[in-house]
Amino acid sequence: MSVAIVGAGPGDPGLITVRALELVEQCDVLVYDRLVSSQLVARAIGATRIARETLTQIEVNELLVHHGRRGRAVVRLKGGDPFVFGRGGEEVEALVDAGVSHEIVPGVSTLTAVPALAGIPLTHRGTAAQVTVLTGTTGDGSDLDYARLASTPGTLVIFMGLKRLTDIADNLILNGRAVDEPAAVVSQLSLPNARVVVGTLATIAATAADLASPAVVIVGGVASLAWQVRQLAEGAGRRS
Amino acid sequence: MSVAIVGAGPGDPGLITVRALELVEQCDVLVYDRLVSSQLVARAIGATRIARETLTQIEVNELLVHHGRRGRAVVRLKGGDPFVFGRGGEEVEALVDAGVSHEIVPGVSTLTAVPALAGIPLTHRGTAAQVTVLTGTTGDGSDLDYARLASTPGTLVIFMGLKRLTDIADNLILNGRAVDEPAAVVSQLSLPNARVVVGTLATIAATAADLASPAVVIVGGVASLAWQVRQLAEGAGRRS
Repeated sequence: MSVAIVGAGPGDPGLITVRALELVEQCDVLVYDRLVSSQLVARAIGATRIARETLTQIEVNELLVHHGRRGRAVVRLKGGDPFVFGRGGEEVEALVDAGVSHEIVPGVSTLTAVPALAGIPLTHRGTAAQVTVLTGTTGDGSDLDYARLASTPGTLVIFMGLKRLTDIADNLILNGRAVDEPAAVVSQLSLPNARVVVGTLATIAATAADLASPAVVIVGGVASLAWQVRQLAEGAGRRS
Repeated sequence: MSVAIVGAGPGDPGLITVRALELVEQCDVLVYDRLVSSQLVARAIGATRIARETLTQIEVNELLVHHGRRGRAVVRLKGGDPFVFGRGGEEVEALVDAGVSHEIVPGVSTLTAVPALAGIPLTHRGTAAQVTVLTGTTGDGSDLDYARLASTPGTLVIFMGLKRLTDIADNLILNGRAVDEPAAVVSQLSLPNARVVVGTLATIAATAADLASPAVVIVGGVASLAWQVRQLAEGAGRRS
């Protein structure tokens, strides 16, 4: 027996992997994130189910070590992928330090699920050959390095950037990024209330003003592709 | 009916999503990449199965449009995720231009599957807050922008970088990256012959000399974490 650190995917229960679902269905103890679908949690029939949100990160680590040591099949089910801004690393460190064996099952990351919803490829021939992924909030509350980001080639993907979007867009422009640089915000990825808005650095903060977190901000030429937005718009055109 | 652009995950058939497997099992036409597991291809019982490797990208696009127009359930099954260096964008563009509806099913990307094999988190508290993803080979055969890459903070993930690894490591050092900067190469991800090597920019090209493509190169402090390498080493130590 060991502790499995498992990605649940971006929200839609169909986007969990086959291996992850098997582990969920067979586990003794399930520790799950708030953003994990209740349909997936319900598949852990007979397991002790523990919501992560009431616990600190240290308590989660201790819980995994405690049950792992007792030989229980433990699944730590995390939204998206456990290792892309998922703090899975801290949990694995605790298990390794305690001598408890672990298995990692990667999931569909929010980063790669963006296209499914919005039709925005992160790289695209002739448009972007590089992707830079960061969070909109620094650990110590300091500003992002806007001078560097403004001159970074390719696509920028900013997690947790919605609340500071006005700041981010203004500072990218002040540091030399074009005002008409395409930008998009994808909110509530893969859930029924998902929304995508597309604009430019000059307009995106106003356009996205009523969107809800969690959301991903995308800056770069690929944002203007957004095929699904185009499909929806063309479909609406045909209906009218 | 529509054409589904589907990610198969990094190789292990258990790392396909539940939704993707459903589509594969129900499709009329399956167009699949060379790196997709034969076990997954075999699940398309009764479908016309077409290997992509004998076709040009334009022929693939035409094939998808052709069968999509005739109302067949078409699955385009791609290794990893269709939109992370997967050229899924070009296929979606062809479908949109032809007026054929499509569905995108994201997959577990090679990018996020790296940790599953090597225990390397792409971001980690206090070590890396940003990830930059690029390919080791530029479209036009020109050099990478080493001056910029050497000063990029956080983790670098380089796809298709194994063949030019000596060049890449040397040029990062020449442009100011520390010689003892941790680096890792993960080869044949999630397959039985997977291998992980860890070293520094000064040593990694020699250490990884006998690894096979496809491989991912990781540069940055997170490479030194590589828990699974540590677990294996500690396991070997206990046995001796």
